[in-house]
Amino acid sequence: MEVITSVQNPRVKQWAKLHTRKEREKTGLFLIEGPHLVEEAYKSGAAFEAILLEEGIEWPSWLPASALALYVTRPVLEKLSETKTPQTMAAVIRMQETTPTKLPRDGFWLLLDRVQDPGNVGTLIRTADAAGLSGIIIGDGSADLYNGKTVRSTMGSLFHLPVWQENLFAFVTRIREQEADARVIGTSLQESKLYTDISYTGAVLLVIGNEGSGMSEEMLALADQNVIIPLYGQAESLNAAIAGSVVIYEAVRQRRL
Amino acid sequence: MEVITSVQNPRVKQWAKLHTRKEREKTGLFLIEGPHLVEEAYKSGAAFEAILLEEGIEWPSWLPASALALYVTRPVLEKLSETKTPQTMAAVIRMQETTPTKLPRDGFWLLLDRVQDPGNVGTLIRTADAAGLSGIIIGDGSADLYNGKTVRSTMGSLFHLPVWQENLFAFVTRIREQEADARVIGTSLQESKLYTDISYTGAVLLVIGNEGSGMSEEMLALADQNVIIPLYGQAESLNAAIAGSVVIYEAVRQRRL
Repeated sequence: MEVITSVQNPRVKQWAKLHTRKEREKTGLFLIEGPHLVEEAYKSGAAFEAILLEEGIEWPSWLPASALALYVTRPVLEKLSETKTPQTMAAVIRMQETTPTKLPRDGFWLLLDRVQDPGNVGTLIRTADAAGLSGIIIGDGSADLYNGKTVRSTMGSLFHLPVWQENLFAFVTRIREQEADARVIGTSLQESKLYTDISYTGAVLLVIGNEGSGMSEEMLALADQNVIIPLYGQAESLNAAIAGSVVIYEAVRQRRL
Repeated sequence: MEVITSVQNPRVKQWAKLHTRKEREKTGLFLIEGPHLVEEAYKSGAAFEAILLEEGIEWPSWLPASALALYVTRPVLEKLSETKTPQTMAAVIRMQETTPTKLPRDGFWLLLDRVQDPGNVGTLIRTADAAGLSGIIIGDGSADLYNGKTVRSTMGSLFHLPVWQENLFAFVTRIREQEADARVIGTSLQESKLYTDISYTGAVLLVIGNEGSGMSEEMLALADQNVIIPLYGQAESLNAAIAGSVVIYEAVRQRRL
Protein backbone atom coordinates (compact mmCIF):
# COMPACT_ATOMS: atom_id res chain seq x y z
CA MET A 1 0.00 0.00 0.00
CA GLU A 2 1.39 3.34 -1.07
CA VAL A 3 1.88 5.89 1.70
CA ILE A 4 2.47 9.54 0.88
CA THR A 5 4.54 11.07 3.65
CA SER A 6 5.81 14.33 2.16
CA VAL A 7 3.92 17.57 1.65
CA GLN A 8 6.42 18.15 -1.17
CA ASN A 9 5.06 15.13 -3.08
CA PRO A 10 4.08 16.42 -6.56
CA ARG A 11 0.56 15.00 -6.36
CA VAL A 12 0.00 16.61 -2.96
CA LYS A 13 1.24 19.94 -4.26
CA GLN A 14 -1.10 19.60 -7.23
CA TRP A 15 -4.10 18.73 -5.05
CA ALA A 16 -3.41 21.60 -2.65
CA LYS A 17 -3.82 24.00 -5.58
CA LEU A 18 -7.49 22.93 -5.75
CA HIS A 19 -8.19 25.40 -2.94
CA THR A 20 -8.42 28.02 -5.70
CA ARG A 21 -11.40 28.26 -8.02
CA LYS A 22 -9.09 28.85 -10.97
CA GLU A 23 -7.33 25.51 -10.49
CA ARG A 24 -10.63 23.68 -9.93
CA GLU A 25 -12.03 25.05 -13.17
CA LYS A 26 -8.82 24.27 -15.05
CA THR A 27 -8.66 20.66 -13.88
CA GLY A 28 -12.31 19.78 -13.29
CA LEU A 29 -11.32 18.43 -9.85
CA PHE A 30 -12.29 19.45 -6.33
CA LEU A 31 -11.36 18.53 -2.77
CA ILE A 32 -13.61 17.23 -0.02
CA GLU A 33 -12.64 16.50 3.57
CA GLY A 34 -14.01 14.42 6.42
CA PRO A 35 -15.17 10.79 6.65
CA HIS A 36 -18.85 11.74 6.37
CA LEU A 37 -18.45 13.66 3.11
CA VAL A 38 -16.16 11.05 1.58
CA GLU A 39 -18.65 8.30 2.44
CA GLU A 40 -21.58 10.27 1.01
CA ALA A 41 -19.61 10.92 -2.16
CA TYR A 42 -18.64 7.26 -2.45
CA LYS A 43 -22.20 6.01 -1.97
CA SER A 44 -23.49 8.44 -4.58
CA GLY A 45 -21.09 7.07 -7.19
CA ALA A 46 -18.84 10.13 -7.39
CA ALA A 47 -15.82 9.89 -9.72
CA PHE A 48 -12.83 9.70 -7.38
CA GLU A 49 -9.40 10.83 -8.44
CA ALA A 50 -8.00 9.85 -5.02
CA ILE A 51 -9.23 8.77 -1.59
CA LEU A 52 -6.81 9.72 1.17
CA LEU A 53 -6.81 8.04 4.58
CA GLU A 54 -4.67 9.11 7.51
CA GLU A 55 -1.90 6.61 8.20
CA GLY A 56 -2.93 4.42 11.11
CA ILE A 57 -6.74 4.65 10.81
CA GLU A 58 -8.80 1.58 10.14
CA TRP A 59 -10.00 0.90 6.58
CA PRO A 60 -13.56 2.31 6.44
CA SER A 61 -16.25 -0.39 6.59
CA TRP A 62 -18.15 1.13 3.65
CA LEU A 63 -15.08 1.10 1.39
CA PRO A 64 -14.43 -2.10 -0.61
CA ALA A 65 -10.97 -3.54 -0.01
CA SER A 66 -10.33 -3.20 -3.74
CA ALA A 67 -10.88 0.57 -3.75
CA LEU A 68 -7.95 2.72 -4.76
CA ALA A 69 -7.22 4.58 -1.55
CA LEU A 70 -3.89 5.94 -0.36
CA TYR A 71 -2.56 6.37 3.12
CA VAL A 72 -1.11 9.80 3.84
CA THR A 73 0.48 11.40 6.89
CA ARG A 74 -1.17 14.04 9.05
CA PRO A 75 0.92 16.89 7.58
CA VAL A 76 -0.37 15.95 4.12
CA LEU A 77 -3.99 16.07 5.32
CA GLU A 78 -3.25 19.39 7.00
CA LYS A 79 -1.91 20.79 3.75
CA LEU A 80 -5.07 19.71 1.91
CA SER A 81 -7.48 20.94 4.59
CA GLU A 82 -9.05 24.38 4.94
CA THR A 83 -10.18 23.78 8.50
CA LYS A 84 -8.24 24.25 11.72
CA THR A 85 -8.50 20.63 12.76
CA PRO A 86 -8.25 18.43 9.67
CA GLN A 87 -10.11 15.16 9.76
CA THR A 88 -8.77 11.68 9.05
CA MET A 89 -9.99 11.47 5.48
CA ALA A 90 -10.05 13.54 2.32
CA ALA A 91 -10.68 12.95 -1.37
CA VAL A 92 -10.14 14.47 -4.77
CA ILE A 93 -13.21 14.18 -6.97
CA ARG A 94 -13.88 14.82 -10.63
CA MET A 95 -16.78 17.23 -11.17
CA GLN A 96 -19.71 15.43 -12.78
CA GLU A 97 -22.09 18.28 -13.06
CA THR A 98 -24.78 17.32 -15.48
CA THR A 99 -27.36 19.76 -16.64
CA PRO A 100 -30.37 17.48 -16.99
CA THR A 101 -31.73 17.67 -20.51
CA LYS A 102 -35.09 16.21 -19.57
CA LEU A 103 -36.61 17.91 -16.55
CA PRO A 104 -39.30 16.16 -14.49
CA ARG A 105 -42.79 17.70 -14.74
CA ASP A 106 -44.22 19.71 -11.83
CA GLY A 107 -40.78 19.98 -10.30
CA PHE A 108 -39.84 22.28 -7.41
CA TRP A 109 -36.54 24.00 -8.22
CA LEU A 110 -34.36 26.32 -6.20
CA LEU A 111 -32.60 29.06 -8.18
CA LEU A 112 -29.70 30.92 -6.56
CA ASP A 113 -29.42 34.42 -8.00
CA ARG A 114 -25.96 35.74 -6.95
CA VAL A 115 -26.02 34.20 -3.46
CA GLN A 116 -22.45 35.04 -2.50
CA ASP A 117 -21.72 33.39 0.81
CA PRO A 118 -20.48 29.80 0.37
CA GLY A 119 -22.05 28.86 3.72
CA ASN A 120 -25.44 30.10 2.51
CA VAL A 121 -25.16 28.23 -0.80
CA GLY A 122 -24.14 25.01 0.96
CA THR A 123 -26.85 25.31 3.62
CA LEU A 124 -29.54 25.95 0.97
CA ILE A 125 -28.42 22.82 -0.90
CA ARG A 126 -28.76 20.88 2.37
CA THR A 127 -32.27 22.25 3.01
CA ALA A 128 -33.34 21.60 -0.60
CA ASP A 129 -32.19 18.00 -0.21
CA ALA A 130 -34.00 17.61 3.12
CA ALA A 131 -37.20 19.04 1.65
CA GLY A 132 -37.07 16.75 -1.37
CA LEU A 133 -36.69 19.40 -4.05
CA SER A 134 -36.10 18.47 -7.70
CA GLY A 135 -32.77 20.29 -7.93
CA ILE A 136 -30.78 23.47 -7.42
CA ILE A 137 -29.53 25.77 -10.14
CA ILE A 138 -26.62 27.98 -9.15
CA GLY A 139 -26.78 31.11 -11.25
CA ASP A 140 -23.97 33.41 -12.40
CA GLY A 141 -22.38 35.46 -9.64
CA SER A 142 -23.13 32.96 -6.87
CA ALA A 143 -20.49 31.34 -4.70
CA ASP A 144 -18.65 28.47 -6.34
CA LEU A 145 -20.34 25.12 -5.80
CA TYR A 146 -16.93 23.50 -5.32
CA ASN A 147 -15.58 26.02 -2.80
CA GLY A 148 -14.50 24.10 0.33
CA LYS A 149 -16.88 26.00 2.59
CA THR A 150 -19.80 25.40 0.21
CA VAL A 151 -19.09 21.69 0.02
CA ARG A 152 -18.71 21.35 3.82
CA SER A 153 -21.95 23.27 4.45
CA THR A 154 -23.90 20.89 2.21
CA MET A 155 -23.02 18.05 4.64
CA GLY A 156 -23.06 15.71 1.64
CA SER A 157 -26.33 16.89 0.08
CA LEU A 158 -24.29 18.01 -2.92
CA PHE A 159 -24.19 14.31 -3.82
CA HIS A 160 -27.89 13.64 -3.23
CA LEU A 161 -29.80 15.66 -5.80
CA PRO A 162 -29.14 17.48 -9.09
CA VAL A 163 -27.11 20.64 -8.46
CA TRP A 164 -25.51 22.54 -11.31
CA GLN A 165 -24.32 25.95 -12.45
CA GLU A 166 -26.33 27.52 -15.27
CA ASN A 167 -27.46 30.95 -16.33
CA LEU A 168 -30.85 31.34 -14.63
CA PHE A 169 -32.50 33.10 -17.56
CA ALA A 170 -31.48 30.17 -19.77
CA PHE A 171 -32.89 27.68 -17.27
CA VAL A 172 -36.23 29.49 -16.96
CA THR A 173 -36.49 29.66 -20.75
CA ARG A 174 -35.69 25.98 -21.02
CA ILE A 175 -38.24 24.84 -18.45
CA ARG A 176 -40.98 27.08 -19.88
CA GLU A 177 -40.54 25.51 -23.29
CA GLN A 178 -41.51 22.27 -21.64
CA GLU A 179 -44.03 23.57 -19.11
CA ALA A 180 -45.55 26.87 -20.15
CA ASP A 181 -47.22 27.27 -16.76
CA ALA A 182 -44.03 26.89 -14.70
CA ARG A 183 -44.10 29.72 -12.16
CA VAL A 184 -41.11 31.79 -11.10
CA ILE A 185 -41.57 32.81 -7.45
CA GLY A 186 -39.18 35.50 -6.30
CA THR A 187 -38.22 36.58 -2.80
CA SER A 188 -38.43 40.35 -2.98
CA LEU A 189 -40.44 43.24 -1.57
CA GLN A 190 -41.59 44.33 -5.03
CA GLU A 191 -45.35 43.72 -5.49
CA SER A 192 -45.05 40.91 -3.02
CA LYS A 193 -47.47 38.79 -1.02
CA LEU A 194 -46.88 37.10 2.33
CA TYR A 195 -45.11 33.81 1.69
CA THR A 196 -47.95 31.99 3.48
CA ASP A 197 -50.62 33.58 1.26
CA ILE A 198 -49.73 32.05 -2.10
CA SER A 199 -50.00 28.56 -3.53
CA TYR A 200 -46.91 26.57 -4.48
CA THR A 201 -48.47 23.77 -6.50
CA GLY A 202 -47.33 22.69 -9.96
CA ALA A 203 -43.93 23.53 -11.46
CA VAL A 204 -42.31 26.07 -9.14
CA LEU A 205 -38.99 27.90 -9.53
CA LEU A 206 -38.12 29.62 -6.26
CA VAL A 207 -35.48 32.36 -6.59
CA ILE A 208 -33.23 33.44 -3.69
CA GLY A 209 -31.32 36.68 -4.27
CA ASN A 210 -28.07 38.22 -3.11
CA GLU A 211 -27.51 38.73 0.63
CA GLY A 212 -27.17 42.48 0.31
CA SER A 213 -28.92 43.59 -2.86
CA GLY A 214 -31.55 40.89 -3.36
CA MET A 215 -32.66 39.58 -6.74
CA SER A 216 -31.21 40.84 -10.02
CA GLU A 217 -33.32 43.03 -12.31
CA GLU A 218 -33.28 40.24 -14.88
CA MET A 219 -34.81 37.71 -12.50
CA LEU A 220 -37.27 40.23 -11.06
CA ALA A 221 -38.54 40.77 -14.60
CA LEU A 222 -39.09 37.02 -14.96
CA ALA A 223 -40.90 36.53 -11.63
CA ASP A 224 -44.61 35.73 -11.75
CA GLN A 225 -45.00 36.49 -8.07
CA ASN A 226 -42.77 37.74 -5.27
CA VAL A 227 -43.12 36.71 -1.66
CA ILE A 228 -41.88 38.19 1.61
CA ILE A 229 -41.46 36.82 5.08
CA PRO A 230 -42.92 39.23 7.63
CA LEU A 231 -40.49 40.92 10.03
CA TYR A 232 -42.10 41.67 13.39
CA GLY A 233 -39.07 42.79 15.41
CA GLN A 234 -36.27 45.21 14.66
CA ALA A 235 -34.18 43.00 12.39
CA GLU A 236 -33.89 44.50 8.93
CA SER A 237 -33.77 41.15 7.20
CA LEU A 238 -33.28 37.43 7.64
CA ASN A 239 -30.16 35.53 6.67
CA ALA A 240 -30.56 34.40 3.01
CA ALA A 241 -30.33 30.68 3.82
CA ILE A 242 -32.89 31.08 6.61
CA ALA A 243 -35.31 33.02 4.41
CA GLY A 244 -35.00 30.49 1.59
CA SER A 245 -35.52 27.57 3.96
CA VAL A 246 -38.60 29.07 5.60
CA VAL A 247 -40.24 29.55 2.19
CA ILE A 248 -39.14 26.09 0.99
CA TYR A 249 -40.75 24.39 3.99
CA GLU A 250 -43.99 26.37 3.63
CA ALA A 251 -44.09 25.37 -0.06
CA VAL A 252 -43.40 21.72 0.74
CA ARG A 253 -46.05 21.73 3.47
CA GLN A 254 -48.62 22.89 0.90
CA ARG A 255 -47.42 20.59 -1.86
CA ARG A 256 -47.80 17.56 0.43
CA LEU A 257 -51.28 18.42 1.76
CA MET B 1 -9.15 64.77 18.88
CA GLU B 2 -7.04 61.89 20.08
CA VAL B 3 -5.68 59.58 17.38
CA ILE B 4 -4.24 56.20 18.28
CA THR B 5 -1.64 55.28 15.71
CA SER B 6 0.28 52.44 17.33
CA VAL B 7 -0.74 48.82 17.71
CA GLN B 8 1.58 48.87 20.75
CA ASN B 9 -0.67 51.39 22.50
CA PRO B 10 -1.56 49.87 25.90
CA ARG B 11 -5.30 50.34 25.39
CA VAL B 12 -5.16 48.69 21.96
CA LYS B 13 -3.21 45.76 23.40
CA GLN B 14 -5.80 45.46 26.17
CA TRP B 15 -8.74 45.56 23.72
CA ALA B 16 -7.14 42.98 21.43
CA LYS B 17 -7.18 40.52 24.33
CA LEU B 18 -11.00 40.62 24.16
CA HIS B 19 -10.82 38.10 21.34
CA THR B 20 -10.59 35.47 24.10
CA ARG B 21 -13.61 34.46 26.15
CA LYS B 22 -11.48 34.44 29.31
CA GLU B 23 -10.60 38.11 28.94
CA ARG B 24 -14.18 39.05 28.08
CA GLU B 25 -15.46 37.34 31.20
CA LYS B 26 -12.73 38.90 33.35
CA THR B 27 -13.40 42.44 32.16
CA GLY B 28 -17.08 42.36 31.23
CA LEU B 29 -16.17 43.95 27.90
CA PHE B 30 -16.56 42.77 24.31
CA LEU B 31 -15.60 43.96 20.83
CA ILE B 32 -17.84 44.67 17.88
CA GLU B 33 -16.80 45.65 14.37
CA GLY B 34 -18.40 47.35 11.40
CA PRO B 35 -20.42 50.57 11.03
CA HIS B 36 -23.74 48.71 11.01
CA LEU B 37 -23.16 46.92 14.32
CA VAL B 38 -21.74 50.01 16.02
CA GLU B 39 -24.76 52.05 14.91
CA GLU B 40 -27.21 49.38 16.11
CA ALA B 41 -25.41 49.23 19.45
CA TYR B 42 -25.43 53.00 19.78
CA LYS B 43 -29.13 53.31 18.98
CA SER B 44 -29.99 50.60 21.50
CA GLY B 45 -28.24 52.50 24.29
CA ALA B 46 -25.31 50.12 24.72
CA ALA B 47 -22.66 51.08 27.27
CA PHE B 48 -19.63 52.06 25.21
CA GLU B 49 -16.12 51.83 26.54
CA ALA B 50 -14.75 53.14 23.25
CA ILE B 51 -15.93 53.92 19.74
CA LEU B 52 -13.13 53.66 17.19
CA LEU B 53 -13.25 55.32 13.79
CA GLU B 54 -10.68 54.87 11.06
CA GLU B 55 -8.60 57.99 10.57
CA GLY B 56 -9.90 59.87 7.55
CA ILE B 57 -13.53 58.68 7.54
CA GLU B 58 -16.35 61.11 8.02
CA TRP B 59 -17.95 61.43 11.45
CA PRO B 60 -21.05 59.18 11.30
CA SER B 61 -24.30 61.11 10.89
CA TRP B 62 -26.01 59.13 13.69
CA LEU B 63 -23.24 59.90 16.21
CA PRO B 64 -23.60 63.14 18.22
CA ALA B 65 -20.58 65.42 17.90
CA SER B 66 -20.21 65.21 21.67
CA ALA B 67 -19.78 61.41 21.66
CA LEU B 68 -16.48 60.08 22.95
CA ALA B 69 -15.06 58.50 19.82
CA LEU B 70 -11.41 58.05 18.93
CA TYR B 71 -9.72 57.99 15.59
CA VAL B 72 -7.38 55.06 15.02
CA THR B 73 -5.19 53.96 12.14
CA ARG B 74 -5.92 51.02 9.86
CA PRO B 75 -3.31 48.78 11.55
CA VAL B 76 -5.07 49.32 14.86
CA LEU B 77 -8.43 48.28 13.35
CA GLU B 78 -6.73 45.27 11.80
CA LYS B 79 -5.37 44.23 15.16
CA LEU B 80 -8.84 44.44 16.71
CA SER B 81 -10.62 42.67 13.86
CA GLU B 82 -11.23 38.96 13.41
CA THR B 83 -12.18 39.30 9.77
CA LYS B 84 -9.92 39.36 6.73
CA THR B 85 -11.01 42.81 5.63
CA PRO B 86 -11.59 44.98 8.70
CA GLN B 87 -14.20 47.65 8.42
CA THR B 88 -13.85 51.34 9.19
CA MET B 89 -15.38 51.22 12.63
CA ALA B 90 -15.18 49.16 15.81
CA ALA B 91 -16.23 49.53 19.42
CA VAL B 92 -15.62 48.16 22.87
CA ILE B 93 -18.84 47.64 24.82
CA ARG B 94 -19.61 46.81 28.41
CA MET B 95 -21.85 43.73 28.75
CA GLN B 96 -25.25 44.71 30.09
CA GLU B 97 -26.84 41.35 30.16
CA THR B 98 -29.87 41.55 32.40
CA THR B 99 -31.83 38.50 33.34
CA PRO B 100 -35.34 39.97 33.41
CA THR B 101 -36.90 39.41 36.82
CA LYS B 102 -40.41 39.98 35.58
CA LEU B 103 -41.21 37.99 32.46
CA PRO B 104 -44.08 39.03 30.16
CA ARG B 105 -47.07 36.66 30.15
CA ASP B 106 -47.70 34.39 27.16
CA GLY B 107 -44.20 35.01 25.90
CA PHE B 108 -42.48 33.07 23.12
CA TRP B 109 -38.94 32.22 24.21
CA LEU B 110 -36.09 30.56 22.40
CA LEU B 111 -33.84 28.32 24.54
CA LEU B 112 -30.45 27.26 23.18
CA ASP B 113 -29.41 23.93 24.67
CA ARG B 114 -25.67 23.54 23.92
CA VAL B 115 -25.83 25.06 20.44
CA GLN B 116 -22.11 25.16 19.80
CA ASP B 117 -21.54 26.96 16.53
CA PRO B 118 -21.29 30.75 17.02
CA GLY B 119 -22.77 31.30 13.56
CA ASN B 120 -25.83 29.24 14.49
CA VAL B 121 -26.29 31.08 17.80
CA GLY B 122 -25.97 34.47 16.08
CA THR B 123 -28.29 33.52 13.22
CA LEU B 124 -30.94 32.20 15.64
CA ILE B 125 -30.81 35.50 17.56
CA ARG B 126 -31.34 37.31 14.26
CA THR B 127 -34.34 35.11 13.35
CA ALA B 128 -35.82 35.43 16.84
CA ASP B 129 -35.60 39.21 16.53
CA ALA B 130 -37.16 39.17 13.05
CA ALA B 131 -40.02 36.96 14.27
CA GLY B 132 -40.71 39.19 17.27
CA LEU B 133 -39.89 36.67 20.00
CA SER B 134 -39.86 37.68 23.68
CA GLY B 135 -36.22 36.76 24.19
CA ILE B 136 -33.45 34.20 23.89
CA ILE B 137 -31.88 32.25 26.73
CA ILE B 138 -28.43 30.87 25.99
CA GLY B 139 -27.97 27.76 28.10
CA ASP B 140 -24.77 26.24 29.50
CA GLY B 141 -22.50 24.69 26.91
CA SER B 142 -23.64 26.95 24.07
CA ALA B 143 -21.31 29.21 22.08
CA ASP B 144 -20.41 32.42 23.87
CA LEU B 145 -22.84 35.25 23.14
CA TYR B 146 -19.90 37.68 22.95
CA ASN B 147 -17.77 35.62 20.56
CA GLY B 148 -16.95 37.78 17.53
CA LYS B 149 -18.58 35.37 15.10
CA THR B 150 -21.75 35.18 17.22
CA VAL B 151 -22.01 38.95 17.41
CA ARG B 152 -21.42 39.41 13.67
CA SER B 153 -24.01 36.75 12.78
CA THR B 154 -26.68 38.53 14.83
CA MET B 155 -26.34 41.52 12.44
CA GLY B 156 -27.21 43.75 15.40
CA SER B 157 -30.20 41.77 16.70
CA LEU B 158 -28.20 41.16 19.88
CA PHE B 159 -29.11 44.76 20.75
CA HIS B 160 -32.79 44.48 19.84
CA LEU B 161 -34.34 42.01 22.28
CA PRO B 162 -33.52 40.38 25.63
CA VAL B 163 -30.70 37.85 25.19
CA TRP B 164 -28.93 36.38 28.18
CA GLN B 165 -26.99 33.38 29.45
CA GLU B 166 -28.76 31.32 32.12
CA ASN B 167 -29.08 27.69 33.12
CA LEU B 168 -32.11 26.47 31.14
CA PHE B 169 -33.51 24.32 33.95
CA ALA B 170 -33.43 27.39 36.22
CA PHE B 171 -35.21 29.46 33.56
CA VAL B 172 -37.96 26.88 33.00
CA THR B 173 -38.48 26.60 36.77
CA ARG B 174 -38.66 30.37 37.07
CA ILE B 175 -41.18 30.85 34.28
CA ARG B 176 -43.37 27.98 35.50
CA GLU B 177 -43.63 29.58 38.94
CA GLN B 178 -45.24 32.50 37.18
CA GLU B 179 -47.14 30.63 34.46
CA ALA B 180 -47.87 27.04 35.40
CA ASP B 181 -49.08 26.27 31.87
CA ALA B 182 -45.95 27.47 30.08
CA ARG B 183 -45.08 24.72 27.57
CA VAL B 184 -41.60 23.50 26.77
CA ILE B 185 -41.49 22.42 23.12
CA GLY B 186 -38.42 20.44 22.19
CA THR B 187 -36.93 19.69 18.80
CA SER B 188 -36.19 15.97 18.99
CA LEU B 189 -37.29 12.69 17.45
CA GLN B 190 -38.42 11.31 20.83
CA GLU B 191 -42.23 10.94 20.96
CA SER B 192 -42.46 13.77 18.50
CA LYS B 193 -45.16 15.23 16.28
CA LEU B 194 -44.74 17.05 13.00
CA TYR B 195 -43.92 20.69 13.73
CA THR B 196 -46.96 21.74 11.70
CA ASP B 197 -49.32 19.52 13.71
CA ILE B 198 -49.14 21.16 17.12
CA SER B 199 -50.39 24.47 18.48
CA TYR B 200 -47.97 27.16 19.66
CA THR B 201 -50.35 29.46 21.53
CA GLY B 202 -49.79 30.75 25.06
CA ALA B 203 -46.45 30.76 26.83
CA VAL B 204 -44.05 28.75 24.68
CA LEU B 205 -40.42 27.82 25.35
CA LEU B 206 -38.86 26.40 22.17
CA VAL B 207 -35.67 24.41 22.75
CA ILE B 208 -32.98 23.97 20.06
CA GLY B 209 -30.38 21.30 20.82
CA ASN B 210 -26.76 20.63 19.96
CA GLU B 211 -25.78 20.35 16.27
CA GLY B 212 -24.55 16.78 16.66
CA SER B 213 -26.20 15.25 19.69
CA GLY B 214 -29.46 17.17 19.94
CA MET B 215 -31.14 18.13 23.22
CA SER B 216 -29.68 17.25 26.61
CA GLU B 217 -31.35 14.56 28.75
CA GLU B 218 -32.21 17.24 31.28
CA MET B 219 -34.13 19.33 28.76
CA LEU B 220 -35.77 16.29 27.15
CA ALA B 221 -37.16 15.41 30.57
CA LEU B 222 -38.66 18.91 30.85
CA ALA B 223 -40.24 18.96 27.39
CA ASP B 224 -44.04 18.79 27.20
CA GLN B 225 -43.92 18.00 23.49
CA ASN B 226 -41.24 17.37 20.90
CA VAL B 227 -41.54 18.33 17.26
CA ILE B 228 -39.71 17.26 14.12
CA ILE B 229 -39.37 18.73 10.69
CA PRO B 230 -39.97 16.05 8.04
CA LEU B 231 -37.02 15.05 5.86
CA TYR B 232 -38.09 13.94 2.40
CA GLY B 233 -34.72 13.65 0.66
CA GLN B 234 -31.48 11.99 1.66
CA ALA B 235 -30.19 14.66 4.06
CA GLU B 236 -29.83 13.23 7.55
CA SER B 237 -30.71 16.50 9.25
CA LEU B 238 -31.13 20.21 8.81
CA ASN B 239 -28.67 22.84 10.01
CA ALA B 240 -29.64 23.79 13.60
CA ALA B 241 -30.28 27.45 12.78
CA ILE B 242 -32.42 26.44 9.79
CA ALA B 243 -34.45 23.93 11.82
CA GLY B 244 -35.01 26.44 14.62
CA SER B 245 -36.05 29.16 12.19
CA VAL B 246 -38.53 26.95 10.31
CA VAL B 247 -40.26 26.03 13.59
CA ILE B 248 -40.15 29.64 14.84
CA TYR B 249 -41.90 30.92 11.71
CA GLU B 250 -44.56 28.18 11.82
CA ALA B 251 -45.21 29.08 15.47
CA VAL B 252 -45.38 32.79 14.70
CA ARG B 253 -47.73 32.15 11.76
CA GLN B 254 -50.12 30.34 14.12
CA ARG B 255 -49.76 32.86 16.95
CA ARG B 256 -50.69 35.71 14.60
CA LEU B 257 -53.74 34.02 13.01
